[in-house]
Amino acid sequence: MELEFLGTGAGAPAKNRNVTSIALKLLDERNSVWLFDAGEATQHQILQTTIKPRKIEKIFITHLHGDHIFGLPGLLSSRSFQGGNGPLTIFGPKGIKNFVKTSLQVSETKLSYTIKFVELDKPGLIFEDSTFKVYFDYLDHRILSVGYRIIEHDYAGELQIDKLKELNVPSGPIYGELKSGKTVQLEDGTKLDGNDFLGKTKKGRIVTILGDTRKTKNSYTLAENADVLVHESTFEKSESRMARNYYHTTSAQAAEIAKKSNVKMLLLTHISARYVGKMAINLQNEARNVFKNTTVVRDFDVINVPFSQKEEVND
Amino acid sequence: MELEFLGTGAGAPAKNRNVTSIALKLLDERNSVWLFDAGEATQHQILQTTIKPRKIEKIFITHLHGDHIFGLPGLLSSRSFQGGNGPLTIFGPKGIKNFVKTSLQVSETKLSYTIKFVELDKPGLIFEDSTFKVYFDYLDHRILSVGYRIIEHDYAGELQIDKLKELNVPSGPIYGELKSGKTVQLEDGTKLDGNDFLGKTKKGRIVTILGDTRKTKNSYTLAENADVLVHESTFEKSESRMARNYYHTTSAQAAEIAKKSNVKMLLLTHISARYVGKMAINLQNEARNVFKNTTVVRDFDVINVPFSQKEEVND
Repeated sequence: MELEFLGTGAGAPAKNRNVTSIALKLLDERNSVWLFDAGEATQHQILQTTIKPRKIEKIFITHLHGDHIFGLPGLLSSRSFQGGNGPLTIFGPKGIKNFVKTSLQVSETKLSYTIKFVELDKPGLIFEDSTFKVYFDYLDHRILSVGYRIIEHDYAGELQIDKLKELNVPSGPIYGELKSGKTVQLEDGTKLDGNDFLGKTKKGRIVTILGDTRKTKNSYTLAENADVLVHESTFEKSESRMARNYYHTTSAQAAEIAKKSNVKMLLLTHISARYVGKMAINLQNEARNVFKNTTVVRDFDVINVPFSQKEEVND
Repeated sequence: MELEFLGTGAGAPAKNRNVTSIALKLLDERNSVWLFDAGEATQHQILQTTIKPRKIEKIFITHLHGDHIFGLPGLLSSRSFQGGNGPLTIFGPKGIKNFVKTSLQVSETKLSYTIKFVELDKPGLIFEDSTFKVYFDYLDHRILSVGYRIIEHDYAGELQIDKLKELNVPSGPIYGELKSGKTVQLEDGTKLDGNDFLGKTKKGRIVTILGDTRKTKNSYTLAENADVLVHESTFEKSESRMARNYYHTTSAQAAEIAKKSNVKMLLLTHISARYVGKMAINLQNEARNVFKNTTVVRDFDVINVPFSQKEEVND
């Protein structure tokens, strides 16, 4: 699981930072990529990476400002052009369907796949399958904006084969039953509880990606215990009033959220073009004074999402 | 007058060619820029040039395929963001207004200027002022596509002051009248015809920019006597059947049009990503066998539009 930042700028594209798009690469986990926002030229940025548009399985839009959605029609077209056949789901605030449909209709674009639109309404669970759950909640921005909390299911512990062999348990279908935690009876009448032969459960990871927002209550709950929190950081510490007036956050405020929510790693993005070079480092330093494990990300940064240190042991 | 090619690729962006956009820089002529098409990331390309978005006065869309219009919403937003206040006119096929309006509405984008939409209907004159006239006509593409013919008004000849001084004509308002070609009477009763004191008229230039199209009759009339013809060249000579099936043109066909229409210079664009490096030169060579003054343009090429050699002398 990796996060690849395709655009880390705010508002309008600049030479060194494109407008927002973040790829959550789930190649090991589900051989697919989830995209969060798609500002203009997201497909151009993807051309510089190893990401294949046909592997984009879901797109989550945080809000409908142009710098987060204007790359969507082109990306959808190119996904089709480059042989994408699998269905695609787009989650986002009400209006996203109208924008995409109108763009494709006016340009007479025929896609080689179907798009399912999920326009967000009631906060809570919006997706779940055997590997992941995704929740959303509302944030506080000039336009309706949301944050996403992606929860990976826990990994079951490995079957401790050595231990079974010591007890002379013959290999066979019985191993599978034990692995799934069932209790089985051997030919000699011995009962074995699968849980006694399983290693440590590996806790799934939590990634929280928030759209543009002021510092707000829901950010804390969305970010709680997350392995990674991706937060906007449009202003520096001294500009907290301006941040509030423009419905944005300072880097120090984002760090406070990370700290109080017991986050493991904070990634700051949505950096204004005003902060070039060392000035972006200043945003990072101000945040690190509050929450040490903070990085201001740049376009094309790839960040591995590590498993949390805290592993839980069965029984 | 210069043409700057912001995107010279076909269909989808490639690393070395972006999708279509062409700037007609009229800085000396009217201190403004006219844009022809605005594929995705046109504003990103502009960032690499000296073009100021606020100087973009008119945008002419040839057809509504995504690779020609998906950069429009972002460009319009940035024009506003970067202090553009002057009104903007967008010409294009029916549907362009719906696309732009929906994009701006869904993203809640407020512009600092007004947009006038001219949706094309009856072929002919669509714009005229004291310096330029613009005509359009229909081409032959899978979707409705048009070509534009931009005609610069002729420049009046310079007043030959030396000749007037020889005749002891005193300078004053009378010079202005003579310059505008009027006949004036001096105090001694002598009548002077302004036209006798004017230098050569400088013929205005003609630039023809065509959208995607098959080889078609209207291309000839749009291009007649043009100083520059910008034509698509999606296929090479041997692929004329494919070009026809996909509603495109070969480079050799474009050259035939340039030749028969008595064009001075042919610029080939809309180059498929299949033609990399030397293969694009092959397109150029095939065209040059028919029409010598041909160039396959690349992104960021700037081409000066020279005045035609044929100048007309008064009387």
